[in-house]
Amino acid sequence: MEKKIAFIGTGVMGASIVKHLLKAGHSVTVYNRTKSKTEELVSLGAKWASTPAEASVDKDIIFTMVGYPKDVEEVYCGKEGILQEAAPGSIVVDMTTSEPTLAKKIYKRAKENGIHSIDAPVSGGDIGAKNGTLSIMVGGDHDIVQSIQSILETFGTNIVYQGEAGAGQHTKMCNQIVIASGMIGVCEAIAYGLKAGLTMEEVLKSISSGAAGSWSLSNLAPRILQGDLEPGFYIKHIIKDIGIAIDEAERMNLTLPGLQLAKELYVTLQEQGYGEKGTQALIKYYVE
Amino acid sequence: MEKKIAFIGTGVMGASIVKHLLKAGHSVTVYNRTKSKTEELVSLGAKWASTPAEASVDKDIIFTMVGYPKDVEEVYCGKEGILQEAAPGSIVVDMTTSEPTLAKKIYKRAKENGIHSIDAPVSGGDIGAKNGTLSIMVGGDHDIVQSIQSILETFGTNIVYQGEAGAGQHTKMCNQIVIASGMIGVCEAIAYGLKAGLTMEEVLKSISSGAAGSWSLSNLAPRILQGDLEPGFYIKHIIKDIGIAIDEAERMNLTLPGLQLAKELYVTLQEQGYGEKGTQALIKYYVE
Repeated sequence: MEKKIAFIGTGVMGASIVKHLLKAGHSVTVYNRTKSKTEELVSLGAKWASTPAEASVDKDIIFTMVGYPKDVEEVYCGKEGILQEAAPGSIVVDMTTSEPTLAKKIYKRAKENGIHSIDAPVSGGDIGAKNGTLSIMVGGDHDIVQSIQSILETFGTNIVYQGEAGAGQHTKMCNQIVIASGMIGVCEAIAYGLKAGLTMEEVLKSISSGAAGSWSLSNLAPRILQGDLEPGFYIKHIIKDIGIAIDEAERMNLTLPGLQLAKELYVTLQEQGYGEKGTQALIKYYVE
Repeated sequence: MEKKIAFIGTGVMGASIVKHLLKAGHSVTVYNRTKSKTEELVSLGAKWASTPAEASVDKDIIFTMVGYPKDVEEVYCGKEGILQEAAPGSIVVDMTTSEPTLAKKIYKRAKENGIHSIDAPVSGGDIGAKNGTLSIMVGGDHDIVQSIQSILETFGTNIVYQGEAGAGQHTKMCNQIVIASGMIGVCEAIAYGLKAGLTMEEVLKSISSGAAGSWSLSNLAPRILQGDLEPGFYIKHIIKDIGIAIDEAERMNLTLPGLQLAKELYVTLQEQGYGEKGTQALIKYYVE
């Protein structure tokens, strides 16, 4: 059934998702801080709104996919925010990778207005968004999540309900924690192998398919060897995510030394000017 | 063509490899410090020798797969060691995960006696050895490695030549470096998720197939969740391997903070009595 949808934050990933929603026949109203990033979508049939609040008027579902937790807070709770105008009974879905604690706060605030809130961060990157094959990690009320399952399926192939509000964000943090330490291992192995005089392309043939095997080793190690440090996922963004995970861990009295180390290494690289490079640029910590 | 082979070190993996060699029709003489571990092999047709030197008399190829670098040094260079008796023109193949520097030393010593030395550590564990599907990382003279290719194929499916003497061991170190930090990420994600109240089996459905995916996440994380800490690969052995890699890295003036951290965490666990458990017991550092 066609829905009236708002989509706040039409960056690279958001824009791809909007295209899937339009293609599926939904009515989509878009808002983006930089208006030019909505133009192509408008040409494809999306409506444009000048504020998140305006976009949210009379909608069934309001998606958000913005940058940082402070942006999430602003688009939901700000003066021209979603919760000013979203109708009772509507569903808000934040796909930004953001704070679990903030997801819970928005859930409560929304509930006070009779609005249902879901946190649904994704993994799969630009390509997953483009191909509609995102992994979507969903937190919130189960019946509400079920009610938008078919909408999520227009852009996701691995949609897993993780529990109450915040559980989607916590799951994304698990994802980032695995990635952060994993990348350290991949880069240290490459640094070691190069220093030992090995031909790393041959080393990868030996180690990629066994117990050391990982997505990073198969996909990012070859890019490192080709000198390609361009972002699939930005260092500045992994720093944001690691920061969120460390803060949440501290709230839970949990110390994660591997994640702490990852933060130190990535912050060092950002200070050296690599914030706009991909996470695989961690190799620069070890090799000139 | 059938070869006269000696095999020194018939532990779980060595015994499986000997069975493949016997099955392929080779004549195999075995030696093991604990004699009882050779009995099944003798019943299957292997000959028994009382010392590595005795086992090495009049052989084409002499394999070794023992515990620690000091054991490797002993079986090669000791009073009753291989190099005392191995014939000129024979080939020695060390499959122990051991020091690259020691592999180079043995290569030189062997060469002085007209013996060819190859380092060929493996990955794939007990199951890989049993099924004959090991990954074999090979260092040494290329023509000599080629001359035993068909023998290696009786128990390995991913046999990659990595370069001169020591390159096989260096490659195995790359493998272990990736695994060590990767396991930190997996265990920290599980610790975080459990503390956040997530159902980790559901979390794994969200994260195992994307950018966080790895062999460890797919194979060891489920065992952790089932409380199964039994060894696929022992903590005491990863500590040995990490120690070798750190020593070699230091020789090359390379600092690997992720690997250092892994060493600290695993040594802490060993001190708590987990040395005989599998590497996935790292979870005990975070969760009671």
